Amino acid sequence: MKISDRIANVQSSPIRKLAPYAKAANAAGKKIYHLNIGQPDIATPECFMQAIREFDPATIAYGDSKGSDRLIEGIRKYYAGWGMDYDASDIFVTNGGSEALSFTMMTLCDPGDEIVVFEPYYANYAMFANILNLRLSPVATNVDEGYHLPDAVTIEAAIGPKTRAILLTNPGNPTGVVYTEAEVQMLADIAKKHEIFIIADEVYREFVYGGKYKSFGTIPEIAQNVILIDSISKRYSACGARIGCIITKNKELAPQLLKCCQSRLCCPMLEQVGAASVYENTPMSYLEDVNKEYKKRRDTIAAALAKIPGLKASDPMGAFYVMVDLPVDDSEKFAIFMLEQFDVDGETTMIAPGNGFYITPGKGTTEARLAYVLKSEDLERAIYILGEGLKAYPGYTLK
Amino acid sequence: MKISDRIANVQSSPIRKLAPYAKAANAAGKKIYHLNIGQPDIATPECFMQAIREFDPATIAYGDSKGSDRLIEGIRKYYAGWGMDYDASDIFVTNGGSEALSFTMMTLCDPGDEIVVFEPYYANYAMFANILNLRLSPVATNVDEGYHLPDAVTIEAAIGPKTRAILLTNPGNPTGVVYTEAEVQMLADIAKKHEIFIIADEVYREFVYGGKYKSFGTIPEIAQNVILIDSISKRYSACGARIGCIITKNKELAPQLLKCCQSRLCCPMLEQVGAASVYENTPMSYLEDVNKEYKKRRDTIAAALAKIPGLKASDPMGAFYVMVDLPVDDSEKFAIFMLEQFDVDGETTMIAPGNGFYITPGKGTTEARLAYVLKSEDLERAIYILGEGLKAYPGYTLK
Repeated sequence: MKISDRIANVQSSPIRKLAPYAKAANAAGKKIYHLNIGQPDIATPECFMQAIREFDPATIAYGDSKGSDRLIEGIRKYYAGWGMDYDASDIFVTNGGSEALSFTMMTLCDPGDEIVVFEPYYANYAMFANILNLRLSPVATNVDEGYHLPDAVTIEAAIGPKTRAILLTNPGNPTGVVYTEAEVQMLADIAKKHEIFIIADEVYREFVYGGKYKSFGTIPEIAQNVILIDSISKRYSACGARIGCIITKNKELAPQLLKCCQSRLCCPMLEQVGAASVYENTPMSYLEDVNKEYKKRRDTIAAALAKIPGLKASDPMGAFYVMVDLPVDDSEKFAIFMLEQFDVDGETTMIAPGNGFYITPGKGTTEARLAYVLKSEDLERAIYILGEGLKAYPGYTLK
Repeated sequence: MKISDRIANVQSSPIRKLAPYAKAANAAGKKIYHLNIGQPDIATPECFMQAIREFDPATIAYGDSKGSDRLIEGIRKYYAGWGMDYDASDIFVTNGGSEALSFTMMTLCDPGDEIVVFEPYYANYAMFANILNLRLSPVATNVDEGYHLPDAVTIEAAIGPKTRAILLTNPGNPTGVVYTEAEVQMLADIAKKHEIFIIADEVYREFVYGGKYKSFGTIPEIAQNVILIDSISKRYSACGARIGCIITKNKELAPQLLKCCQSRLCCPMLEQVGAASVYENTPMSYLEDVNKEYKKRRDTIAAALAKIPGLKASDPMGAFYVMVDLPVDDSEKFAIFMLEQFDVDGETTMIAPGNGFYITPGKGTTEARLAYVLKSEDLERAIYILGEGLKAYPGYTLK
């Protein structure tokens, strides 16, 4: 019996595909430092579970397809705090940023339509694109320029008659880049000129460690072009809650996004209660403390990486990832080697191979994404082990 | 800026599209008996919230993409209780039956591929089909034959070279039909002969009020063809939890379904804790009591409907819906009339217009789906008001 080409063409996530090797390493008694996945160890604000414990409905009933009024109001106020004036009708609660992305893609694109992305990009963008039969049109960025954007002419060359949107993460996953105000304005001008959407995945908005952050939601002249993707996963360290949202002032999109929401009836109700509470009750100091902690980790990992000969790293300014170019023949083979054949006193480090963050064949082969989601002493140890692993790896290129 | 044709072509849910009229009626002080939506008033087993209250992780972290081991084990054991022997690796936890359906459709079908459905069908099937650019190939059933299936020749006429599956709900939504063992075997034989899948949406398995129920999971010779869609929404009256699953023994599908699961990282963690507890701790007597209660309601609504002149109803044997043919010009206009212009002592009844459950143009225009999810005295009142409304409605055809 035939299986669809669309799903056959989906590549497994570079973040999750080595899980079987990790499981085997665990079973063999190895301790693994997980730099492969963006799962923070920060505590979720206590008010999240507190609100759910106090929630006591006789029946866990369907809710509103576009999200509970209380959660939408919490999100609206959070945006007001950032100086972005959204109406409740502009906000659609989703099953994480993931569903926000897939709803947005299906609303904008028919099969064969295109979305411009900057390589390396968040790997799951390609999964959604494949499932929905879109094409990603990649624009290259690289470690030597800190994964910043090329000029407008280069970007516009990737835009064709079937292009519906530019999709980007800012701060960047997997690169940690934070686009400058000039870069954001350049993309806004391009979107306006070409009459295309900007899908701005800004889930790491609070994770910026220097410079100024400019949201696409703050540029009035492209309000109709902008679709913000957001989530509580990283902001409030609640990845497993799967609460995200789509925000747009574009009133032509609203009834279409509502249909997407209605197709799956509603989002889970308990997490909406928790998320509403988190938006209502978490003090600003929580986000400031989290930012400080990640800035420290960023400094720790940057210093540790600088000691490894032949390793090139960008200077990560945001999110909690750093993309590195490794002195190896193939970073996926190296990642597997680290899990299967290497340890320092029973401990090893797991990384996400770079090729899964690229669509252009051959790119990213020697790169890897490191998530600095562990406390500083663990990060130092993890990077030390990585350095030792490189020297022991048969495909080490500095030998 | 262009919006996709796929989303533009999606029809709003017949169950939810009249919500604005209901909101206005509510605002005007009217009490509405909601027969439009399958939201039971039955209490969720207490162990659901109890387990969540006791769940106290510091961080609400990502879980396994295919679901928590504990929940999968609970589902496996539940199936063993039905005499169906599944392995943990056959089970994929999803965001409700909705996601189970969309994952299954995207895994089987490329754009232009076809799925056979029996009209009237669960309306959201058409939403997913549109979003994924599939075509539904409808086979007619009708009220006079209690929405039972036509013969094999008629069904096979709907199967072409692009047909990938037969999709059905059993017990039926919106019809309440329970297919006979002979009907189930006929479909099994057709699937085997044409080498296509059967997507069996069996979320109402416990809601059968007479006769014998045959699951597609109990026919060994089509084990490779069968994909079961399941959910706790109705079984444990937890619609708002959004916990469903896909079950299949087909090992070619497994890695593809896993990719679907990985694309959205994981299902919400709290509801998985609650659902696992419900599967572990709910006594059989809960399901038996619920069945008894719905049987009573079924009898109540059937008796009440029998009193309305010119109304044709099937004899619903399962689920908690009855499809009726009304003596009106247009059931959607009538549904709006009931909300906007009619009441009995400040009360009215809301129904789901029938046209949304059909893809064939012109069909279902005078039909409606009634969900008997209210207690018997409310049902009697709701159907009484419906009868009075018919007589007052300008498009009443018995005048």
